[in-house]
Amino acid sequence: MEGKEEDVKLGANKFPERQPIGTSAQSDKDYKEPPPAPLFEPGELKSWSFYRAGIAEFTATFLFLYISVLTVMGVLKSNTKCATVGVQGIAWAFGGMIFALVYCTAGISGGHINPAVTFGLFLARKLSLTRAVFYMIMQCLGAICGAGVVKGFEGSGNYERLGGGANVVNHGYTKGDGLGAEIVGTFVLVYTVFSATDAKRNARDSHVPILAPLPIGFAVFLVHLATIPITGTGINPARSLGAAIIFDKDHAWDDQWIFWVGPFIGAALAAVYHQIVIRAIPFKSRA
Amino acid sequence: MEGKEEDVKLGANKFPERQPIGTSAQSDKDYKEPPPAPLFEPGELKSWSFYRAGIAEFTATFLFLYISVLTVMGVLKSNTKCATVGVQGIAWAFGGMIFALVYCTAGISGGHINPAVTFGLFLARKLSLTRAVFYMIMQCLGAICGAGVVKGFEGSGNYERLGGGANVVNHGYTKGDGLGAEIVGTFVLVYTVFSATDAKRNARDSHVPILAPLPIGFAVFLVHLATIPITGTGINPARSLGAAIIFDKDHAWDDQWIFWVGPFIGAALAAVYHQIVIRAIPFKSRA
Amino acid sequence: MEGKEEDVKLGANKFPERQPIGTSAQSDKDYKEPPPAPLFEPGELKSWSFYRAGIAEFTATFLFLYISVLTVMGVLKSNTKCATVGVQGIAWAFGGMIFALVYCTAGISGGHINPAVTFGLFLARKLSLTRAVFYMIMQCLGAICGAGVVKGFEGSGNYERLGGGANVVNHGYTKGDGLGAEIVGTFVLVYTVFSATDAKRNARDSHVPILAPLPIGFAVFLVHLATIPITGTGINPARSLGAAIIFDKDHAWDDQWIFWVGPFIGAALAAVYHQIVIRAIPFKSRA
Amino acid sequence: MEGKEEDVKLGANKFPERQPIGTSAQSDKDYKEPPPAPLFEPGELKSWSFYRAGIAEFTATFLFLYISVLTVMGVLKSNTKCATVGVQGIAWAFGGMIFALVYCTAGISGGHINPAVTFGLFLARKLSLTRAVFYMIMQCLGAICGAGVVKGFEGSGNYERLGGGANVVNHGYTKGDGLGAEIVGTFVLVYTVFSATDAKRNARDSHVPILAPLPIGFAVFLVHLATIPITGTGINPARSLGAAIIFDKDHAWDDQWIFWVGPFIGAALAAVYHQIVIRAIPFKSRA
Repeated sequence: MEGKEEDVKLGANKFPERQPIGTSAQSDKDYKEPPPAPLFEPGELKSWSFYRAGIAEFTATFLFLYISVLTVMGVLKSNTKCATVGVQGIAWAFGGMIFALVYCTAGISGGHINPAVTFGLFLARKLSLTRAVFYMIMQCLGAICGAGVVKGFEGSGNYERLGGGANVVNHGYTKGDGLGAEIVGTFVLVYTVFSATDAKRNARDSHVPILAPLPIGFAVFLVHLATIPITGTGINPARSLGAAIIFDKDHAWDDQWIFWVGPFIGAALAAVYHQIVIRAIPFKSRA
Repeated sequence: MEGKEEDVKLGANKFPERQPIGTSAQSDKDYKEPPPAPLFEPGELKSWSFYRAGIAEFTATFLFLYISVLTVMGVLKSNTKCATVGVQGIAWAFGGMIFALVYCTAGISGGHINPAVTFGLFLARKLSLTRAVFYMIMQCLGAICGAGVVKGFEGSGNYERLGGGANVVNHGYTKGDGLGAEIVGTFVLVYTVFSATDAKRNARDSHVPILAPLPIGFAVFLVHLATIPITGTGINPARSLGAAIIFDKDHAWDDQWIFWVGPFIGAALAAVYHQIVIRAIPFKSRA
Repeated sequence: MEGKEEDVKLGANKFPERQPIGTSAQSDKDYKEPPPAPLFEPGELKSWSFYRAGIAEFTATFLFLYISVLTVMGVLKSNTKCATVGVQGIAWAFGGMIFALVYCTAGISGGHINPAVTFGLFLARKLSLTRAVFYMIMQCLGAICGAGVVKGFEGSGNYERLGGGANVVNHGYTKGDGLGAEIVGTFVLVYTVFSATDAKRNARDSHVPILAPLPIGFAVFLVHLATIPITGTGINPARSLGAAIIFDKDHAWDDQWIFWVGPFIGAALAAVYHQIVIRAIPFKSRA
Repeated sequence: MEGKEEDVKLGANKFPERQPIGTSAQSDKDYKEPPPAPLFEPGELKSWSFYRAGIAEFTATFLFLYISVLTVMGVLKSNTKCATVGVQGIAWAFGGMIFALVYCTAGISGGHINPAVTFGLFLARKLSLTRAVFYMIMQCLGAICGAGVVKGFEGSGNYERLGGGANVVNHGYTKGDGLGAEIVGTFVLVYTVFSATDAKRNARDSHVPILAPLPIGFAVFLVHLATIPITGTGINPARSLGAAIIFDKDHAWDDQWIFWVGPFIGAALAAVYHQIVIRAIPFKSRA
């Protein structure tokens, strides 16, 4: 360790890659990109850890929708927003839950809690197709149950009157604006996921993965600060689907596609940006 | 360390358990579940560290109630919520104090500051019955004193007019809603406690326990964001009891059972979820 | 490291001191309390690092008052609190600055930025009397300059009309309430300082001191959430003195003693609590 | 490590430099200041990592402006600020994005995302002139694009009516106040950057650079809390330029110089403070 660090310091002006601020330099010599995950890995299906990971994704997405949609209800129910936690409190609920849940489930399932994250990591070949599909199904089921419990507490009348936490493109914005906001918002999230977890593979510093949930949670918080006025902020198709199924009104269904197409495009762009621009992985493979 | 890390990287596709994001993989081979704590451990009672731990729990719960109930009073006292720290500020007071206090007392008593957490960890056999009961008593005494000091500062009249920070099921919700909110809310908290501290036992990464107070504090903050409109948020029987004893009005006592039964059920579910679903400990013991 | 950790795990039921949550156990065998700092250390006065530390305390306290008092002005100036960062924003300004500044100056001066913290650490014999007095003078000078720059920006008229960020006991509270709030509030802060930095001396985990600024900053934030309605929250005599000197109105001077006596009592109680109850240092010295 | 730590502990009273709180002591013996970066380094221009770093700065500044200006629009658009994330939410958007983006890009480009930070680090000779100029150009281009996308979503009419997130000196303050606020505000930021990343060079603790994004992001948040009422808070010439170009009204251009001159002076002062007062680097070079 000491020796390596010394290299980095002394070599600061010798190598083309220098790091004025931040983590230690990422040179190629001391990390090997793990081989891509196979599309299908039959062994997985016989392993309890595979099903346990799915259960963990279900539980996390359940708790995510429960806390966040309940917070939304509490804010919308009050006549005066000043007597509630406010719209900023809603943003904290979404972002804070992602922080806590990624921290809690990262060691079990990888802590995706979001089909768009699963999709982005699948494109980067970090998990098999089987696992990706299984995660997405469990996430959607968890989200439906979470929103359902909130409806149980609030009563159907209240829940429907207050919009049920469903994502729709708000008045004053076009469908294109909503789609664009979902694309860039999900890019911010999945870009943070890739950046925050990349250093792990560099294996230079084992603390990065442990700190990673904080910037990932903040990314969700920040996108909510910016785009709640536009779409209520999806950037998580399971969250949008769960709320829509429990709310079940036409205008929520009309926009539902935006909250699947947008996040998946955003996640794909983030995967391309990280794997090609930042890591240049295709070019390395050829070498 | 290097060697182990290398295994994790190279083995990414060889073992059924992979970790696309987050902490290093948790395989069974390199951690041994510590043996369960005995129900009664006579040696404890002769150790100063046992009493010191109780004093630390008392002090922490005292400070927790003092800061959080005083914040509640400040918000409720003002005619316009906008001139206060707001309901979101109340949520920060509860969650932030748990963060700081768990950080401060984790090395002395384990940093429970909550009978529901003590109960959950007792069910998982992390501490003896003697210690669990002693902690709960000290937590309740600390909470009573903390709320008492706030009453001293605010004056009896104000304190009672403003509800004294006591937990009750709010208008518009049934007792069942309140009980359910306490169960799920405490599940979120104790689930985070188990998840955040589990990695310690894996002994793979010694920083996890040090970072753990942050997600634990956030869990408390987030549950407050969601359920302050329903019950004011208990998820801590000592907090609910302390406020009720100092407030001492019938309607606070009528609902008091909810803030003991709910958190204890939630904590038990979290212990079962973590020990059985995630860790599969009973099945291992048989092997 | 591995060996030690193993001890902790296996020994979980063998030793009276167990740590169900949080940092590794603190047994006496592997840490030696550093010897108390001498009251006077003539060598210090010839060292540039001594003066540099004083300059760092000056700069940090300057920036602390500048940002926090300017935030207070911005909130009070507006007719509608909703168009400002609000009282919660004021609490963040005080707490957040302490977080950032302790992080920045911890390696230079220890990052006190508060005569009450310096006093508490002096009582615990962590620094010499010479150094403690020098730090306090530099902190007060920095605070005066910081508040002065804010007055320059806001203009004398505005600054005085808005109270200049000075601490006074607010209407509805007695001087005794104010004194009590300062004592308990400073106890929370200095108790966090001792707890967060104690683990360093245990030398078990070198990351604790680096994380310590976060709970310390949160402690300041939380005390502000609770006691802004009572006194505006001092818990830092330099902050109270600086604002009072620049504001310079009789009613600020009338209460000034509260913001020195309170914090010093609170810091002394925290030092006693930590050194005697938690660390039992006097009893060890006799052995 | 153990041995060194032991020195620090035992030596606490032997050496003039002691560290009552915080990180381990910084003595000269175990760190070598890296040699200053050359003004021009032709090798850089042939390296893909140089261009990749520029792309990372572009992307980060693009996302920074997108999220922050969109948040500003959302707050200003609403008739009642209480139904938005509020001015505090704006401060979180700016500071939180810097936290997340510095975390994400620190390993690629150093994570500047701000020409004033680049300028300060250039003065301290941490990067070549070539690289500094390239970074600044990419930051400005990213900022223009980010603000442009927000204008696309909001529509020209709305965007211009709401001020487009452009920095101007607000009514009630002189140009001198605005310039002063920018100088001190940027000093806070760049001072935090230097302090938070300095410990890395000490190589005593490799975690510091990983934690550094948090205090850096908080510094941005805190300066916004304090100076949004004065100038809207620039402290980042790329952010001010990008918003001004897309807004393109005379009164934004009239004050634009303040948001370049102020931050550059503040960054220069922070570089001088850190390199000369804290590190005494010129004096060491002579030895």
